[in-house]
Amino acid sequence: MTNKMWGGRFKQDQDLLFWKFQSSIHYDKVLASYDIKGSIAHAKMLGKTGIIPVRAAQLITSNLAKMLKDLENNSFKIDLSAEDIHSAIYIALKKKIGDAADYLHTARSRNDQVVLDLRMYAKDKISVLTGLIKKLQSALVNVSKKNIDVIIPGLTHTRHAVPILLSHQLLAYVEMFERDSKRLFQARERCDEMPLGACAMAGTSFVIDREYVAKLLGFKKVSQNSIDAVSDRDFVIDILSAIAILFMHLSRFCEEMILFSTPEFNIIEIGEAYCTGSSIMPQKKNPDALELIRGTSARAYANLNSIMIMMKGLPLSYNRDMQLDKEEFFDSVDMTEKVLTIMSGLVKSIMINKNNMLKVFEDDESLFALDIADYLVRKGLAFARAHTITGKIITYCADNRLKISALPIDKLKRFTSKFDESFYKELDAKRSVVKKSSTGSTNPIFVRQQINKWVKRLKD
Amino acid sequence: MTNKMWGGRFKQDQDLLFWKFQSSIHYDKVLASYDIKGSIAHAKMLGKTGIIPVRAAQLITSNLAKMLKDLENNSFKIDLSAEDIHSAIYIALKKKIGDAADYLHTARSRNDQVVLDLRMYAKDKISVLTGLIKKLQSALVNVSKKNIDVIIPGLTHTRHAVPILLSHQLLAYVEMFERDSKRLFQARERCDEMPLGACAMAGTSFVIDREYVAKLLGFKKVSQNSIDAVSDRDFVIDILSAIAILFMHLSRFCEEMILFSTPEFNIIEIGEAYCTGSSIMPQKKNPDALELIRGTSARAYANLNSIMIMMKGLPLSYNRDMQLDKEEFFDSVDMTEKVLTIMSGLVKSIMINKNNMLKVFEDDESLFALDIADYLVRKGLAFARAHTITGKIITYCADNRLKISALPIDKLKRFTSKFDESFYKELDAKRSVVKKSSTGSTNPIFVRQQINKWVKRLKD
Amino acid sequence: MTNKMWGGRFKQDQDLLFWKFQSSIHYDKVLASYDIKGSIAHAKMLGKTGIIPVRAAQLITSNLAKMLKDLENNSFKIDLSAEDIHSAIYIALKKKIGDAADYLHTARSRNDQVVLDLRMYAKDKISVLTGLIKKLQSALVNVSKKNIDVIIPGLTHTRHAVPILLSHQLLAYVEMFERDSKRLFQARERCDEMPLGACAMAGTSFVIDREYVAKLLGFKKVSQNSIDAVSDRDFVIDILSAIAILFMHLSRFCEEMILFSTPEFNIIEIGEAYCTGSSIMPQKKNPDALELIRGTSARAYANLNSIMIMMKGLPLSYNRDMQLDKEEFFDSVDMTEKVLTIMSGLVKSIMINKNNMLKVFEDDESLFALDIADYLVRKGLAFARAHTITGKIITYCADNRLKISALPIDKLKRFTSKFDESFYKELDAKRSVVKKSSTGSTNPIFVRQQINKWVKRLKD
Amino acid sequence: MTNKMWGGRFKQDQDLLFWKFQSSIHYDKVLASYDIKGSIAHAKMLGKTGIIPVRAAQLITSNLAKMLKDLENNSFKIDLSAEDIHSAIYIALKKKIGDAADYLHTARSRNDQVVLDLRMYAKDKISVLTGLIKKLQSALVNVSKKNIDVIIPGLTHTRHAVPILLSHQLLAYVEMFERDSKRLFQARERCDEMPLGACAMAGTSFVIDREYVAKLLGFKKVSQNSIDAVSDRDFVIDILSAIAILFMHLSRFCEEMILFSTPEFNIIEIGEAYCTGSSIMPQKKNPDALELIRGTSARAYANLNSIMIMMKGLPLSYNRDMQLDKEEFFDSVDMTEKVLTIMSGLVKSIMINKNNMLKVFEDDESLFALDIADYLVRKGLAFARAHTITGKIITYCADNRLKISALPIDKLKRFTSKFDESFYKELDAKRSVVKKSSTGSTNPIFVRQQINKWVKRLKD
Repeated sequence: MTNKMWGGRFKQDQDLLFWKFQSSIHYDKVLASYDIKGSIAHAKMLGKTGIIPVRAAQLITSNLAKMLKDLENNSFKIDLSAEDIHSAIYIALKKKIGDAADYLHTARSRNDQVVLDLRMYAKDKISVLTGLIKKLQSALVNVSKKNIDVIIPGLTHTRHAVPILLSHQLLAYVEMFERDSKRLFQARERCDEMPLGACAMAGTSFVIDREYVAKLLGFKKVSQNSIDAVSDRDFVIDILSAIAILFMHLSRFCEEMILFSTPEFNIIEIGEAYCTGSSIMPQKKNPDALELIRGTSARAYANLNSIMIMMKGLPLSYNRDMQLDKEEFFDSVDMTEKVLTIMSGLVKSIMINKNNMLKVFEDDESLFALDIADYLVRKGLAFARAHTITGKIITYCADNRLKISALPIDKLKRFTSKFDESFYKELDAKRSVVKKSSTGSTNPIFVRQQINKWVKRLKD
Repeated sequence: MTNKMWGGRFKQDQDLLFWKFQSSIHYDKVLASYDIKGSIAHAKMLGKTGIIPVRAAQLITSNLAKMLKDLENNSFKIDLSAEDIHSAIYIALKKKIGDAADYLHTARSRNDQVVLDLRMYAKDKISVLTGLIKKLQSALVNVSKKNIDVIIPGLTHTRHAVPILLSHQLLAYVEMFERDSKRLFQARERCDEMPLGACAMAGTSFVIDREYVAKLLGFKKVSQNSIDAVSDRDFVIDILSAIAILFMHLSRFCEEMILFSTPEFNIIEIGEAYCTGSSIMPQKKNPDALELIRGTSARAYANLNSIMIMMKGLPLSYNRDMQLDKEEFFDSVDMTEKVLTIMSGLVKSIMINKNNMLKVFEDDESLFALDIADYLVRKGLAFARAHTITGKIITYCADNRLKISALPIDKLKRFTSKFDESFYKELDAKRSVVKKSSTGSTNPIFVRQQINKWVKRLKD
Repeated sequence: MTNKMWGGRFKQDQDLLFWKFQSSIHYDKVLASYDIKGSIAHAKMLGKTGIIPVRAAQLITSNLAKMLKDLENNSFKIDLSAEDIHSAIYIALKKKIGDAADYLHTARSRNDQVVLDLRMYAKDKISVLTGLIKKLQSALVNVSKKNIDVIIPGLTHTRHAVPILLSHQLLAYVEMFERDSKRLFQARERCDEMPLGACAMAGTSFVIDREYVAKLLGFKKVSQNSIDAVSDRDFVIDILSAIAILFMHLSRFCEEMILFSTPEFNIIEIGEAYCTGSSIMPQKKNPDALELIRGTSARAYANLNSIMIMMKGLPLSYNRDMQLDKEEFFDSVDMTEKVLTIMSGLVKSIMINKNNMLKVFEDDESLFALDIADYLVRKGLAFARAHTITGKIITYCADNRLKISALPIDKLKRFTSKFDESFYKELDAKRSVVKKSSTGSTNPIFVRQQINKWVKRLKD
Repeated sequence: MTNKMWGGRFKQDQDLLFWKFQSSIHYDKVLASYDIKGSIAHAKMLGKTGIIPVRAAQLITSNLAKMLKDLENNSFKIDLSAEDIHSAIYIALKKKIGDAADYLHTARSRNDQVVLDLRMYAKDKISVLTGLIKKLQSALVNVSKKNIDVIIPGLTHTRHAVPILLSHQLLAYVEMFERDSKRLFQARERCDEMPLGACAMAGTSFVIDREYVAKLLGFKKVSQNSIDAVSDRDFVIDILSAIAILFMHLSRFCEEMILFSTPEFNIIEIGEAYCTGSSIMPQKKNPDALELIRGTSARAYANLNSIMIMMKGLPLSYNRDMQLDKEEFFDSVDMTEKVLTIMSGLVKSIMINKNNMLKVFEDDESLFALDIADYLVRKGLAFARAHTITGKIITYCADNRLKISALPIDKLKRFTSKFDESFYKELDAKRSVVKKSSTGSTNPIFVRQQINKWVKRLKD
């Protein structure tokens, strides 16, 4: 417990269990490289402005640069007995250069230092995540492209609704993930503010050059209110919120793929590489990846909640509760990285059971109910009327175990005289989708346009 | 239960309790005006494109326009026995113009209709909310401006840290609320997509003109994937998330104002108009408004959660669960409207106990500890060393119940010879803040600049 | 705003919008009867102990008794302009008996009064809810009894696992709901503490008789710490937690029934009384009740969260935030009442598609994989080995599109010599379930025992 | 990836990243001892019933017993490349005894095995936690006992309400923690059900003896529905819910202690062993332990949420999502262990600033407002009237900056003639608490009784 950055006023050591409990080194060590980079920039600035001796600044920066290289080579060992990553780096530096290290903490507090580190981490990770989202979108677009001719029953209420292109459905997810990217991008904008100089909360009396530090570290601007700078965790919440919504989308996709790959639905098959078996039932090929990702969405939600609840009702400025912003944040970011990567692979592994799809439309002609109603509208009925008549035909067929296509024309005419022989060709999935004419509809022409648009956009 | 927009295939009535349970009219009635406006635009388009007879279109639009006017005059009575607001409007129209009303539902489903209504509602409400945020910001800026000379103990860990301007602290909230506005603004962008034409989920075979409808209703663009159009509730979640974060900020402000207005802290007083008394303790003037708003933040969080949990794992496209997006959404929007308005008033009612603040700095000189350390750094010590020495002085004074200002210079020199007579003037709150020189710090010059910036920006 | 139970120290009226915001009458009016009963008991005690004049006590109790009768007859109109239900009742009393009403508030605060009301409400409602749970359990047991012979594919990972009795699966839910009842029952125990006498927080100097009040109101004991008595909302959270878990169970049941009633799974059909149709697709019969209940579970979770978050970090004793315990509490209780009632009806409406079930076992013989492995174990193989061999047979058949039952014995012997002709009869669903011999298994004998147990237990 | 308990039907290996993602060994390793004990009992039963050869059973049990001993001695190294702890143990056994290990998995599946392990873990941990709660309660009771004479201002709305004993307030927390213990105890009852024999979900055809296994492992009963046995995670949620509520109580205590230890409130001081300093502000002694525990409550909430959301809408029986019940469960249990231990130490370290408390009652006589009103009631006024008059006196004094005790009797009589000289002695904190006469009140006699009750009860 000697490795502290404070303590002059304390006479007593910390309770050991409390000390371990409050220590954050076991998770904030992922900030190591950002902490070092931040300190290099800070030291350069302190030297340049003459706040600390130029020699001290040089000693600090060159040694930190070395440490960063070691870290990247895995030859720097983080001291896990330190209180946090900031202390660990500082102590390591002190071991190397002695008291000269003491200059580093001029005009800086851990309050602004930790926010700097977190913001740098956040900016980096968002770039990684949006890259992975793009890959997942590309995988979906590719499957869509390859299977542009596959028609499946579109579902509402998990019930047969109308014929749609499978590709059209997959592209719906591409839209969702695009919004997720956008959200992360906007969150990144809000991360892009350099907090250093806020110190404990009020700023510093040293004549520092914050714009210079911002430039060195690649930040667009400097924060304008030092109290807000150390109190604000919105940028963490923004990212956790974006990730939670992304996982909501993923959970829907998982649910759907689990459903589609049951023997009952039999629309797709998931590659074995993303399934596991059972220790007791030898036949099993379970969609574990999909289930685990669906389940993980609960944790993505919970991580968001955790930070928001933690922040509720905290007076300004820094409170120690805020140290707890990290584990959940890092956890969500890590999970997302893994899940997006796995999901891209899984999507590529999907096989389509085309033959079964043809059978479905033969077996369940009620899927053409809207086509029938629209047919009757084109024959002159108002929609509400056409809707009622079609409903009656469906029920009649169900009650008498008849197929609609098996009803002779005079039978149909009893429902309404508008029917004529041209009707029967409406009972066709391909015709149903091709007939669609509205922008954004399931018409293969539109779907192909969308695919092309996405191919192009995802290239950049 | 006869007022249904469907039913041809049903032989049995709904269970009465279930019918009431599934009915949404008691809350989705707030969408009435949007539903009518949407139907007018849809009917105009159906007429213009020749999908329905021009006369029918005119009959529909003129009667709906009348209905809208009646609604605004409170002379239109919504039939609360209808299943939902869409049915209620449709039935009311049918009562007026008979079967001609049946044309209205051509090329439209409730699935796309409800999304249209919700998006129109969302866009309107966001404008209202960002307007109210501006008012609250202005109230805070005004208090800051009027009290620019008030210095209070800045807190970290709810403990005295360093002297700051009260205005500086209030402006931290202005920053937070600015981010909230930004978030809502970005959410509004995502709302600005016209979904009509998606129909049930696959688009329509009628040759509709979606761009025309979008133009009539003031939407920037039309949705590009009909399945996503009816499955997506991101825009609701975006807003709920922005509102939850806003409430997180409000809860912090409330906590702080409750703290600051205790007899112990005695920094501010809340106007009686925002307090209530006790039925048993006659002396009480309780900060109820602040407590209720702090408490309400829990509900803002819960509303966000509710919708996210509801959406988890739903397969595409529409599922009835999604009807439950509304109550929590409307509730959060309403709460936010009320709370922002009340908070603006409350902020205006705040009085500052300036005299007590002077006393605080006299009583607790440890608030100048950082000033002392910085003094020693300017005298040539490295910061870490200066920090340790200052800590020792603080402890020495506490143990011996001495004030730092009462220590003679030779006593001080025993801690370090760097001390000289110039030291004593460091123990001064005003000097402490004025000395601050970093952008964004609590220096009155910078704070005044910020106030001016905000005054200007909030004018627009 | 004159109808306040406090105000002597206030010079200014409340802000009107704040006044409405803080008023709780629009939801706490459901506590009216409890508030009156509580006041009757309190007044009786004050009279009996001589703290107030006997005549005043009599005047108060007789008039409150009259008010209670009127309330039950719907002839008492609650004044919705009052601050809360306590004020409304008090003011109504004062209108009747004038200043004598002023005696009622002796030795009582709204802080303990509201807790009393809430606890009485909670105890009553728990009885209602456990009664409704019993009804739902009975409905499930009845369906189980009537369909004891129906075998369906048991699912793990939403994939065919082993043959099970449908009744066995339904009884799993009966177990879950039994735990829910137990949880509510235990929560009720914790509600059964009479808080009156705690007053504001410290107790009272009047020599009151708390045990007498407890006896009058049917409470088992009186609270032992006055500060805890007014600060505690655990009993609300206990109930909300029990309800949330109940809804978790309901959501699983809904999901399963939605799945089982798809045309693809085709195991059950839901009565039309619990479905609705589509405004655009005439064939639709959607499982709306199930979807809405599944969706509502999100709100049950959120209501629990809301109160827990609201309570986080509140110092003792009463804080105004705590007023917000009510809306979510009442909402969850109401929802649960409705949903349990609807669900009982829905369960009764379930029809089983037995014929389809026979077909399933013919089509997918991999459902007997565990039976095959167990067969091989009985023939002398260790389980792990039997498991591997069975897996290979399954894959062989799938690859060659063969049924296992179609493999001749010499073919089978190539996998292991243990196979003999007795093997083929293992491929039988009925045999599979009958063979099960462990307590709690799907063997019809055990399942029937369970049914009998439940029939008996649910009678009480 | 060869260390699998399944795989006969698979031709392809798992994707490596997915494999790692789905592996649970890095957290379920804490179940190792339970898994071994469960397997020993299972093997004994298989031997006893003759399902597997007696020699095999003995070989298995003796080797597992050795393994358990090694585990306890830290000389058993868990293979972290295994899929989960069940596989790791199985593979280790197989390495020792070869194919004989294959017998172990007869009549068992990982589905029931993991539930067994979890239930054993849960039962053990609940005992640990309730023990720690007792210690915390004892620490609070001790502080209460030692400081029975300290009177502080009781707070409602974080505002001075009435004089109370500090001990009375601390005992309120003892009550809360007692409910927490009770909740955990009841949760333990629900854990006490032996699930083995449920196998995959349907039970087994082997004639096993579940009661024997239950007896060996110390379970009170065996589960009665095999599907529920593998699908149920209520017992995890029960515990997480109990822990979350416990943390709600802890968060309130933390908030209060943070408040009480500010220089402004100055009621208590926290031992240095539970505080830390600042890297920039040398005077700081921050209440970090309290802040971190308050913050951790957010995570306790989130962990509960996570599991509940994960379970929402899962069809029976086992789904892979359910693997995710563990990390949050273990995390909450671990946190609770640590936090309770730290908190006991912290409570012991609390020092009371008695002198300051005397000053508070001198400075703020409004704390006696209820005493004044009660005085007037005893002099014959109805309470509501006494309340109003007292309010007016308070305001009068505040406006004129007078102390109530400084008002001469004739001045007081202008408010009501009921006042006489006996009034002035009411303005006394000690008298105020001693006057209280209701059970559970802050009267030192009652508080002492409570202390004695707790001392006795906590001894057991």
